[in-house]
Amino acid sequence: VVSSDEDRIGDVRNIALVIEYNGARFAGWQVQPGQRTVQQSITDAIAAVTGEAVKLIGSGRTDSGVHAEGQVANFKTQSSIKTSRFPAAINSHLAADAAVIEARDVPPDFHARHDAVGKTYRYTISTRAVKPVFSRELAVWVPRAMDVAAMREAAAHLVGTHDFNSFRAQGKIDKDAVRTIERIDIDEDDNVLRMYFAGTGFLYMMVRIIVGTLVEVGWGQRAPGDMPGVIEARRRGAAGHTAPPEGLCLIEVRY
Amino acid sequence: VVSSDEDRIGDVRNIALVIEYNGARFAGWQVQPGQRTVQQSITDAIAAVTGEAVKLIGSGRTDSGVHAEGQVANFKTQSSIKTSRFPAAINSHLAADAAVIEARDVPPDFHARHDAVGKTYRYTISTRAVKPVFSRELAVWVPRAMDVAAMREAAAHLVGTHDFNSFRAQGKIDKDAVRTIERIDIDEDDNVLRMYFAGTGFLYMMVRIIVGTLVEVGWGQRAPGDMPGVIEARRRGAAGHTAPPEGLCLIEVRY
Repeated sequence: VVSSDEDRIGDVRNIALVIEYNGARFAGWQVQPGQRTVQQSITDAIAAVTGEAVKLIGSGRTDSGVHAEGQVANFKTQSSIKTSRFPAAINSHLAADAAVIEARDVPPDFHARHDAVGKTYRYTISTRAVKPVFSRELAVWVPRAMDVAAMREAAAHLVGTHDFNSFRAQGKIDKDAVRTIERIDIDEDDNVLRMYFAGTGFLYMMVRIIVGTLVEVGWGQRAPGDMPGVIEARRRGAAGHTAPPEGLCLIEVRY
Repeated sequence: VVSSDEDRIGDVRNIALVIEYNGARFAGWQVQPGQRTVQQSITDAIAAVTGEAVKLIGSGRTDSGVHAEGQVANFKTQSSIKTSRFPAAINSHLAADAAVIEARDVPPDFHARHDAVGKTYRYTISTRAVKPVFSRELAVWVPRAMDVAAMREAAAHLVGTHDFNSFRAQGKIDKDAVRTIERIDIDEDDNVLRMYFAGTGFLYMMVRIIVGTLVEVGWGQRAPGDMPGVIEARRRGAAGHTAPPEGLCLIEVRY
């Protein structure tokens, strides 16, 4: 018997999806009763396509208002649908603000959260004097001059392996708050500041607290040289404010 | 008596505004009873700021759904408000999808429509296989391969001074349909096609009909060498379909 790609009913396949979403009208990634979440929307769409109630495992949660261009999630299915057909099939059951951009067969033991070895986030700030009309859902508007050179200098102190207890949401306990930030790049172009954070993993709220702290450096409220002391303090109060969610976008998960 | 900049009540000033708007939720530029239009919104905002019912003259109308990054309009005022304060003052009375990005004193006889000597439009098409999540209001999604080299070759035939009767909305009469297109540039980057049209002026629907025609060339339904014949036909039926409004943006008006 020749088994075609369309003819694998009964086989359990593990499928990884790359997912894009505008977080503005989602209550974040993770399923929450009574809320519109990305995980719920994609799970419902997969159910509509396959007839299965799958367990969709994301690489990690994103908060309410946070966007993604490259969230990764996996699920197991016995459906006979060709892998290459999943994006269009799932997308036909999604609203305009979320889309599966890629589907791939992955080994049976692939786990989108456990196997992630790195992530990249982008944080976007519009510094234009006038409110931005077009990027309003995708950038934070901060019409105030920032010293980007000082921000880059401060950011350099954060790169590397550190205990990031000062940069995690208050009240959250991580047994191990040691993370590695591989790089922080800050691009400035036409009144738009784009800050890229690549690392092995990030604590809850960590990127947004780093951004808030770097913005305070940009405003001259903190000196770049204060950053080692902020890290060493290992308490949330030592760092700056938490930047709002709408500037944040998960752009890549690495495996 | 020394007259300060704040102290000019009674002087009639002519003020030009540069205006940005996302056309998605506007019924176009021009005032229409019972409709939400950009001209009406800005006029109302000026009234809230100055207490005056001004006549706001735009460089030209944009259709429902069409965007602008650089629409220009002028109005006369006897208000004592400093010119540099107009953008923030007007913007505080506008919704998030429109903003005045610049205000400038112009000579008494400046007329935003009559004095315009050139305009540049951009038309954006997403050719990605999967629907775009982020640019959905600002680009048209055409997930079908296009021969961009052929489109550029076709576009080159349109550059110059021609009678563009074939490229104007059916039923619209322009006594003189002769216009000059100074340049058409087509950029392709990461599944996004951006087409720039610079010219002395454009007939009603002209850019969208040119885009629809060039897309048909991109799909191989028309040859680039057919374009001189389309121009010579001087009838709407000779050209291609009218591309949808949401891809179009007025990016500059030149004086």
